[in-house]
Amino acid sequence: MSDNTRNIYDIARLAGVSIATVSRVVNGSDKVSEKTRRRVLQVIEDEGYTPNVFAQGLGLNTMHTVGILVPDISDLYMSTCVNFLEEELHANNYEVILSCSGFDLARKKNHVEMLLNKRIDALILVGSTYAGDGRSSAQTDYIRDAAKSVPVFVVNGLVEGDNVYCTVCDDRKATRDVTTLLIKRGRKRILFLSDSHSYSAQQKLAGYEEALTSNGLPVLGELRLALGNHEIRCVRDLLLQYQNLAFDAAVAVEDTIAVGVMKYAAIKGLKVPEDLEITGYNNSVVSIAATPELTSIDGRVEEICHETAARLLSVLSGKTDVEKTVSIEPLIVRRSTTDF
Amino acid sequence: MSDNTRNIYDIARLAGVSIATVSRVVNGSDKVSEKTRRRVLQVIEDEGYTPNVFAQGLGLNTMHTVGILVPDISDLYMSTCVNFLEEELHANNYEVILSCSGFDLARKKNHVEMLLNKRIDALILVGSTYAGDGRSSAQTDYIRDAAKSVPVFVVNGLVEGDNVYCTVCDDRKATRDVTTLLIKRGRKRILFLSDSHSYSAQQKLAGYEEALTSNGLPVLGELRLALGNHEIRCVRDLLLQYQNLAFDAAVAVEDTIAVGVMKYAAIKGLKVPEDLEITGYNNSVVSIAATPELTSIDGRVEEICHETAARLLSVLSGKTDVEKTVSIEPLIVRRSTTDF
Repeated sequence: MSDNTRNIYDIARLAGVSIATVSRVVNGSDKVSEKTRRRVLQVIEDEGYTPNVFAQGLGLNTMHTVGILVPDISDLYMSTCVNFLEEELHANNYEVILSCSGFDLARKKNHVEMLLNKRIDALILVGSTYAGDGRSSAQTDYIRDAAKSVPVFVVNGLVEGDNVYCTVCDDRKATRDVTTLLIKRGRKRILFLSDSHSYSAQQKLAGYEEALTSNGLPVLGELRLALGNHEIRCVRDLLLQYQNLAFDAAVAVEDTIAVGVMKYAAIKGLKVPEDLEITGYNNSVVSIAATPELTSIDGRVEEICHETAARLLSVLSGKTDVEKTVSIEPLIVRRSTTDF
Repeated sequence: MSDNTRNIYDIARLAGVSIATVSRVVNGSDKVSEKTRRRVLQVIEDEGYTPNVFAQGLGLNTMHTVGILVPDISDLYMSTCVNFLEEELHANNYEVILSCSGFDLARKKNHVEMLLNKRIDALILVGSTYAGDGRSSAQTDYIRDAAKSVPVFVVNGLVEGDNVYCTVCDDRKATRDVTTLLIKRGRKRILFLSDSHSYSAQQKLAGYEEALTSNGLPVLGELRLALGNHEIRCVRDLLLQYQNLAFDAAVAVEDTIAVGVMKYAAIKGLKVPEDLEITGYNNSVVSIAATPELTSIDGRVEEICHETAARLLSVLSGKTDVEKTVSIEPLIVRRSTTDF
């Protein structure tokens, strides 16, 4: 078979080497053994593969393809990620195939398989849900399996494995920092609101609890609210049901949750930030739409995506010294719902 | 070649017929000529294609695939669409490949080609940008070309052509209705704010102007603001620059634009809705995050997506009497920024 639809992925598979190795051979790198080099060149010749055309991304069949998997594309954080990744990859002659897996493990596995079947050159998993709960490695075995075929990049989640590259936001530090700032302002009963059990949500909770403990405040179960979702009105209505829950600050894992707390405060006649300080997370459009504007943690999604795309391009171009894990430090964007 | 990776698309291509025809043959429909039926069955036999397994969506290689193209996945309206479409298609054993084309015609064409090369069974284009400006048919020729290979479904845009199916929201009626309501409330200088020249934006403008004209009010160029984008703060700051622009109501083509007007009103000390009534569009999370909550037009994205998916499934199952164009009537969601 010598049609011109063979891509670098096919050559790598047929030669039994990684894409990076094929790329090295094509680019004349001296980091490949003579034996491997010969085998790859033989496959390239047998298959009529024209690496230069592919490398330059000319024409349609010559575009490289990256698969991106998200659990839920209607989520603002994730759709923003996909947008940044798509822009950067497209500028480098990579096409993007996106698929939505939901949060169920079996479906995640199916979707990864499906993307691998589409002859992708690399796989990006967006969101900490792909890192499982961070305890059982069985939840992430399918990622290590996928990484045997193509390099895998996890956005905002930590997964260990060969050929798996992670870019994370230090969520733990972020909630530790804002909680500490609230404590220094004299806040004593700080509510923590979360709608998820993801690795990222756990990190945020850990940061909140660390701040309490290291400042001599008790960690109270009643101040840790687990929500069914992050819809503004649901959060507001849930809080209204708690008759005797007193709190003087609220740390939310998502901006819409924080706005739900603001709506609750308005109904209860609580002044923000005087009676109640509130912080959100993700620095989304909602934090600016709210009145007063919401203090929020900026997870620096653009930097995370840029870091992911840059390392992906490095790996696919054959570089071997690419960092496995990069941690981006979040920013606290101070607006009008806090006094710190 | 008789491996089990052949799909309905391959069979259709090899037999020189549409997917719908293959489906009809497989399902024993009598709407296929005997000659065509024989040819399709011969190809199915030659290729070792097992339609029942495919039809039931068992296993990974057996999933059908639908390509979805959006200009900008970080846009709330579009990511919501994709989410609804993906859910519904997945429930019917279709996988989704999503691609982001931007707004440039050449890139749109490239992305459609790329998706067709991924062996999709149908193509969905999300957003009125794919309908061009509604004047030059040259802007949509690539859609009719694509429809020669697979059925094409346009979400919220009108494109005429064989094998092209459209689901639109009656945007014109929506802005005509809200503008009329504002006029009946006594509003005389109603601002219209838009950030786009898409077909949808033109329809919204036409509805606004129709309401003015049919109520004997002048159509004034100074009250028609063309914005560079729909970011809340940009809209607010632009309005603050207009020193002498007086208006007593504002109709925006996007919720974030309307919230920008609300932020402007807050700075100018204008009371909403007493001094200034404001309506948004899309009924997004932003309309609920705002204070007061924003009256918005609900384009009924879920119904539009459901209607699109239902007709897509009908066409692919071989039905021939599927409606070409379906118009969904939008709803006005009254909240606290208007008095009607």
